[in-house]
Amino acid sequence: MFTNSEIQFELLKKRAFNLRWAAVDKDVIPLTAADPDFPCAPEIGEAIAKYAKDRYFSYAPAAGYAFFKEAVANFHLIKRNISVNPDWVLAVDSAAFGIYTICKTFLNKNDEAIVFNPVDFLFKYAVEANQGIAISFPVPLNPEQEIDYQLLESLITPKTKMLCLCNPLNPTGKVFTANELAIIGNIAVKYNLIILSDEIWSDIIFKPNVYTSIASINNDIKNQTIIVTGYSKSYGLAGLRVGAIIAPSEHLFNQIFEKSGHEATINGCNVLAQVAASTALNECGEWLNQFVNHLTEMKNFCVSELNNIVGFSCYVPQGCYLVFPNINNTRKTAQEIQTLLLEKAKVAVVPGLGQWFGSRADGHIRISFATSKEILQESFTRINKALKA
Amino acid sequence: MFTNSEIQFELLKKRAFNLRWAAVDKDVIPLTAADPDFPCAPEIGEAIAKYAKDRYFSYAPAAGYAFFKEAVANFHLIKRNISVNPDWVLAVDSAAFGIYTICKTFLNKNDEAIVFNPVDFLFKYAVEANQGIAISFPVPLNPEQEIDYQLLESLITPKTKMLCLCNPLNPTGKVFTANELAIIGNIAVKYNLIILSDEIWSDIIFKPNVYTSIASINNDIKNQTIIVTGYSKSYGLAGLRVGAIIAPSEHLFNQIFEKSGHEATINGCNVLAQVAASTALNECGEWLNQFVNHLTEMKNFCVSELNNIVGFSCYVPQGCYLVFPNINNTRKTAQEIQTLLLEKAKVAVVPGLGQWFGSRADGHIRISFATSKEILQESFTRINKALKA
Repeated sequence: MFTNSEIQFELLKKRAFNLRWAAVDKDVIPLTAADPDFPCAPEIGEAIAKYAKDRYFSYAPAAGYAFFKEAVANFHLIKRNISVNPDWVLAVDSAAFGIYTICKTFLNKNDEAIVFNPVDFLFKYAVEANQGIAISFPVPLNPEQEIDYQLLESLITPKTKMLCLCNPLNPTGKVFTANELAIIGNIAVKYNLIILSDEIWSDIIFKPNVYTSIASINNDIKNQTIIVTGYSKSYGLAGLRVGAIIAPSEHLFNQIFEKSGHEATINGCNVLAQVAASTALNECGEWLNQFVNHLTEMKNFCVSELNNIVGFSCYVPQGCYLVFPNINNTRKTAQEIQTLLLEKAKVAVVPGLGQWFGSRADGHIRISFATSKEILQESFTRINKALKA
Repeated sequence: MFTNSEIQFELLKKRAFNLRWAAVDKDVIPLTAADPDFPCAPEIGEAIAKYAKDRYFSYAPAAGYAFFKEAVANFHLIKRNISVNPDWVLAVDSAAFGIYTICKTFLNKNDEAIVFNPVDFLFKYAVEANQGIAISFPVPLNPEQEIDYQLLESLITPKTKMLCLCNPLNPTGKVFTANELAIIGNIAVKYNLIILSDEIWSDIIFKPNVYTSIASINNDIKNQTIIVTGYSKSYGLAGLRVGAIIAPSEHLFNQIFEKSGHEATINGCNVLAQVAASTALNECGEWLNQFVNHLTEMKNFCVSELNNIVGFSCYVPQGCYLVFPNINNTRKTAQEIQTLLLEKAKVAVVPGLGQWFGSRADGHIRISFATSKEILQESFTRINKALKA
């Protein structure tokens, strides 16, 4: 199912922006933004078409349709072992909006939030856009290595209100174990911190790793945790803009809802996006399993290829369809390598710049491998040739 | 085409929220939120289905797809006599988000914005949500009457940064003439005010009135004007969440884009919403003409019925599918009439409360008539019976 012949490159060249096929020169392979090259599950296209043919796109409920909220709650009960009240699920138009809204809800001016380093730029961005202060928490680049809990605790001050957890961790691919999450969660409980748990990557886990949500550890931790997730990574729905915020109580839900702008219709989630996401959750589990099987092979292939490149070294990611090799031994910067690969190999990657991932991403590049084996083979052929030249 | 038999009430009862069919008791007729009871144009459903069947929903460009931006620019050139650069069109997920974002862009703390009274609550809400001060500008309830330009000018202070124009004016149904707009526009130019021109109702105009955009008056006025519009009222797409912000220059566009959250993917516009809106603009002009023809009949019917009710008096709206009768001579408040109609007539209307429309809406109720003649006849039969009881 996830073969090269399945990919419709002509459509990608028209539709896939954000540094991808439609945004690069036509001879460039983009391994940039985390967005699959494969078409989404057929059930999703069919469900949208069926809904659209009724020709009714009336105002949705401000917090989302019951069918969506119930699909999200059901998924979390069955797949995450978390009892979720559908009333406390907010349909949002992206995990990014979810992260922003949680920061808007729980941070006052100059409040501090712990942000892992490296991690996706959105956390720092959302904290600062809401006048908070992002406190950088350096974490290992090696997914096998535990984080430094003493260091984490030492960063907490009376101004600290939130701990931002990205699990699995983009860009390192770390999947936190239940033990690790219990320690992190207990620290948050001890200091009464809101845990913002970004779980957008939680379906993309490579065996023998297993996914645990921090909200499933115990009730004390669950009561501090706001889960935010989205359906772009697992199901290829970035352009539909759909995600969810899950609160552990009516009180916290109401606070978030008030800040969301949903009641005033300033923000909200498109009804077809909700149809797509609930179809994905209810009907596309087997499609997702096969996607993860394919990604597991691609992960092994990429890690092996990268570790054969002189000057590159790459840990094995436990989750996410990303590899994040260290390129320091090339004696070039990440920006120089990115430019060289783009110009000489015609392969686009994301440089590990501080602005994208935090200062500890320095000396790394990020490669998304949600594509076919053929595309990755061609990419590494080109990369090897360019680097040897 | 706009007959009672076209309306699929069973679908509305599942899908139409925001005070409408799915949000009221099953024996209630909702004449509340401005959202048509009719299915949207067939071309829109088909275009969405066709796009969805390709199964590619990749990341959209942050500012919107070129096909959408060009459709918006083309519409404004042909139908509004305004030359629009597609690069300065921002696809947004609603006119409401557009209004909010324009306020966020151009208002600093304690800056003042002129907000008509009465008008939809969103203007005051968006100004205040961005720490601005909404200055109430009382305007006539009678759409035939000109606004008081001297009063408008007297409200302008050194802190005034923006003039919020809603044309046609929800809830009074006033359509501003070119002469009126020239005077308003020249005042804005004289004091260097940004004109936020909300044109979401601009397709719903009853002859002999004609629509003029304030941006079409002259270049000085155009250069101060940010147009915001949406496609929910004209085409029944509220649940798809789609609108546009149109800036008159690269400089103003960039300021708005920076504040929009689009670049960081926190906000954005769903791709199927862009497909729907561009199909509407490019292919559904005749459908819209017939819709407006139907609405013209319904407007005449509603005004006539309302003026036959003892204690009600109703001006003739020039645009919008809304009537806004004064009910003071019933010696009841708007809230009392709303409750009475809901409980005794099983007809839901919107009371003219200050929180929804400003203080001058007091003593009025708002009725949306984007439905069939049969539904309106049944509503007035029930209303007359309840009021006579």
